Amino acid sequence: MRIHLRIFLASLLTLIASLALGPAAFAENDPLPSWNDGPIKQEIIEFVHATTDESSPTFVAPAERIATFDNDGTLWPSHPMYTQLAFALDRIKTLAPEHPEWKTKQPFKAVLDNDIKALAAAGEKGLVELIMASHAGMSTAEFEKIVTDWFNTATHPRFKRPYAELAYQPMLELLAYLRANGFKTYIVSGGGVEFMRPMTEAVYGVPPEQVVGSTIKTKYEMKDGKPVLMRLPDIDFIDDKAGKPVGINKFIGRRPIAAFGNSAGDRQMLEWTGAGSGARLMMLVLHDDAEREYAYGPAKGLPNTKFGTFPQSLMEEADEKGWIVISMKKDWARIFSFEE
Amino acid sequence: MRIHLRIFLASLLTLIASLALGPAAFAENDPLPSWNDGPIKQEIIEFVHATTDESSPTFVAPAERIATFDNDGTLWPSHPMYTQLAFALDRIKTLAPEHPEWKTKQPFKAVLDNDIKALAAAGEKGLVELIMASHAGMSTAEFEKIVTDWFNTATHPRFKRPYAELAYQPMLELLAYLRANGFKTYIVSGGGVEFMRPMTEAVYGVPPEQVVGSTIKTKYEMKDGKPVLMRLPDIDFIDDKAGKPVGINKFIGRRPIAAFGNSAGDRQMLEWTGAGSGARLMMLVLHDDAEREYAYGPAKGLPNTKFGTFPQSLMEEADEKGWIVISMKKDWARIFSFEE
Repeated sequence: MRIHLRIFLASLLTLIASLALGPAAFAENDPLPSWNDGPIKQEIIEFVHATTDESSPTFVAPAERIATFDNDGTLWPSHPMYTQLAFALDRIKTLAPEHPEWKTKQPFKAVLDNDIKALAAAGEKGLVELIMASHAGMSTAEFEKIVTDWFNTATHPRFKRPYAELAYQPMLELLAYLRANGFKTYIVSGGGVEFMRPMTEAVYGVPPEQVVGSTIKTKYEMKDGKPVLMRLPDIDFIDDKAGKPVGINKFIGRRPIAAFGNSAGDRQMLEWTGAGSGARLMMLVLHDDAEREYAYGPAKGLPNTKFGTFPQSLMEEADEKGWIVISMKKDWARIFSFEE
Repeated sequence: MRIHLRIFLASLLTLIASLALGPAAFAENDPLPSWNDGPIKQEIIEFVHATTDESSPTFVAPAERIATFDNDGTLWPSHPMYTQLAFALDRIKTLAPEHPEWKTKQPFKAVLDNDIKALAAAGEKGLVELIMASHAGMSTAEFEKIVTDWFNTATHPRFKRPYAELAYQPMLELLAYLRANGFKTYIVSGGGVEFMRPMTEAVYGVPPEQVVGSTIKTKYEMKDGKPVLMRLPDIDFIDDKAGKPVGINKFIGRRPIAAFGNSAGDRQMLEWTGAGSGARLMMLVLHDDAEREYAYGPAKGLPNTKFGTFPQSLMEEADEKGWIVISMKKDWARIFSFEE
């Protein structure tokens, strides 16, 4: 019920604001032009005022203005598969000439044959094998170059554009709006830290030290008299589900006051954020726009998915706790910067 | 040899600067008043000019101005024992009434009897047992309170003052000077992240998200309907020796351009910092002042120690690689803010 009351109050404030300022003045100063006017956009603006206006009873000191964003499905698409999985599959194909044994060995054979059914049958164990073969065995500097080169050439299968151009325009505006108001914006993703860092600054304006994610172990070694960090085929930390509050506490050491996600993997991050005192903003992106992007749930009867599942139980928790669910279809005037 | 040439050139620059400005003007603008004038102080100032003056060929963009500082023995004393060990021993004594079995069980008995010999005999395994018994089994919020309360009441056995007052004044000036020049200052310590965070902002001006250190595992749980992170008796990461570059890469994701340490535990951090291109500043604090603080090595024939060992091999690597060794006795006009 709480969310409905808040949305009602926010609507009332929108109305008052537009009457006071007139529609022209309102549009001119709009920090979120790709968000459709309405209660959700207004909730964001109200939250920023409530936490940054020094006369507000819920004012938050700049150092404590921490906002955390999931990446896949929250800031850019996670369909038809996670971007990092697309990278891993491409990498396996690139490395295949050096590994003739992969022609007959699963799960590598499935990748080389583009056999999605066999790939799915390999399960999580197979996935870890693919990640390790494509993400370990090189230095951190070499891996950074491999990832950067891939982002410079790879394109999304549906949108036929580099992944960097697929950042959601409304979320880019939200990131910029929060930063302009003294917030420190962090990525907190299940994706690999060193897969994300080569692009987060250019794409999202988030510097490397503000990227929290999954890690594999690295080892300090001397190679030709120079120190390197070698990436080992050994998982260090999985920054997903209950791992997200753990990662936030480990890397940031402060509880966020705003958190943005889109799936069951973000549930605990939103719970952790919401459990603090004072003004809080928790939002979930619902992918309900098959025309402009994708539609999946299975919440609200949308099709089920393996990438970025939004279960009905998450929708119920959102309703109960006052988390705001963003409908891509209704709330976003445009999704990508290249639209129109 | 390189270091000698640099010190000679720096001396020359000090001379020219003092001739040009006159001693009064020089003293007035001194950002490092607790450092004795001389080549080492001048090296620091020259490095800051070289990296922050836009006309300098070695100019560094603000975002890349990362400086990492070891804590124990670099920013405050590590004798007669690491501060965190003093905390652990106090904590064991506080908890003893709830653990009658400790009266007869090592290494706890040794702590309760103040039996240093038996404590030493318990070795590293014993130490880990003490750390786990004192640092795990509570939530992160509870631990933060325990640590904060301890820092508010505990005093150093020799200096009879709260630990927070024992930060080295020259290093506080150095931290402030670097930050005033757009550097981001990080703690990179073998100490526990959550033991340090409750005091780093007040004592060093370093916020929680810029503290890299050792961690124990934490687990996200619901307790009375509220989420908590429970501290488990299980080591997650040791941020010492070869672990320091690993920690720097994991948490910061950028290579520092300046690094400050005092012991064998900092060797790899300085190597990693020095292996980057452009202007670099690597410094080691040598504790050679038994009168005002402590004197230990065993480098340069100083007494050996278990807390913050500075071996002769580190001195040789410093000389070979141009790392600057700070003599507390000669280079620091005062060590603590409460002196005089």
